[in-house]
Amino acid sequence: MTKHPKSLPDGTRRNEASRKAILTSAFDLVGEVGFAKLSIEAIAARAGVGKQTIYRWWPSKGAVFFDAFLMLSEDQVSGYPALPDTGDLEADLKSVLRATVGELNDPRYDEPMRALTTEIVHDPELAATYAERLREPMRRLKVDRLRKAQEAGQLDAGTDLDLAVEMLWGPLLNRWLQRTEPLTVEYADLVVETALHGLSPRTQARVA
Amino acid sequence: MTKHPKSLPDGTRRNEASRKAILTSAFDLVGEVGFAKLSIEAIAARAGVGKQTIYRWWPSKGAVFFDAFLMLSEDQVSGYPALPDTGDLEADLKSVLRATVGELNDPRYDEPMRALTTEIVHDPELAATYAERLREPMRRLKVDRLRKAQEAGQLDAGTDLDLAVEMLWGPLLNRWLQRTEPLTVEYADLVVETALHGLSPRTQARVA
Repeated sequence: MTKHPKSLPDGTRRNEASRKAILTSAFDLVGEVGFAKLSIEAIAARAGVGKQTIYRWWPSKGAVFFDAFLMLSEDQVSGYPALPDTGDLEADLKSVLRATVGELNDPRYDEPMRALTTEIVHDPELAATYAERLREPMRRLKVDRLRKAQEAGQLDAGTDLDLAVEMLWGPLLNRWLQRTEPLTVEYADLVVETALHGLSPRTQARVA
Repeated sequence: MTKHPKSLPDGTRRNEASRKAILTSAFDLVGEVGFAKLSIEAIAARAGVGKQTIYRWWPSKGAVFFDAFLMLSEDQVSGYPALPDTGDLEADLKSVLRATVGELNDPRYDEPMRALTTEIVHDPELAATYAERLREPMRRLKVDRLRKAQEAGQLDAGTDLDLAVEMLWGPLLNRWLQRTEPLTVEYADLVVETALHGLSPRTQARVA
């Protein structure tokens, strides 16, 4: 792991520009040709740097791509400081899950996210880094919103909030990953309603 | 796809024995060395056949391994003609999901199932074959059990049964795949209870 100093000494600004160009090129190339055909040569050519510059900073194309994905995703996470809270939990969850459907269906993200997902399955160290830098911050945002709902009496006091996150986001991610059916906003709505109300017969009268 | 005739002509029995030896060897080797290090040479040596025998029947090591996984899994599926039905849906689901936890934690299956899962993500054709021969028959067994419960008034009449399968089995598979936490029978029980009763406040009095 390279540590980045807070104040930028001579040359660091140029290094940062090269680093960003390399990471952006790696991300775009995976979207265009797939992870299997990604090469250090192609990244270097696209970024306008020498291959040696890349090898000095990263041990493998997998490491470059992972940093690229994290850079772009971290920008996204910091752009979403909290999940919406209008007081209407069901409506808020539907709007968030509909946005997730849009991201998963975006061709720019589809192939890179598939590559990352499968790399993680076979690489426990990568899985741990991913969990710490990306999955865990995202999970906290979701749990924070659900905890507020629980405190407001909109979720059962006994509900395990981590499992709640899984029941809400899991079905979307699985349908995307397994390509079983098209991922639609209607499915997002159905998932929210089913997770909140459960599979058992509904005893509450529902307001239409 | 090779079609297997119902009556066995001369030589077919010997071919079947070789085929089984090759598939069993491929499956065991993936469990021992991982899919990435699996080789046709090693499969041939373990099965006591020539490499050409394998290349005559399969185009790649991936194809051999996929058939191996299907052979063993199909044996398992045909060994489970239906999910248990004691009339107590919650108890039945807990016993089935506890068995799933046991299978996912079995080191003999862990690496082969990871390999298959990630191959499927990148290979739509493999995904379609897998869906037809394995996922779909398993899904039907689960949906059949849930439909009986729905007809008996133990599931809400409006519940989407495919999504119900996803809410019950998805969290287990994801925890296993992402290695986020140990996969335990306690988690299986919690998933069943949460999926049935939902995340919203429970209005029914529960019998302890």
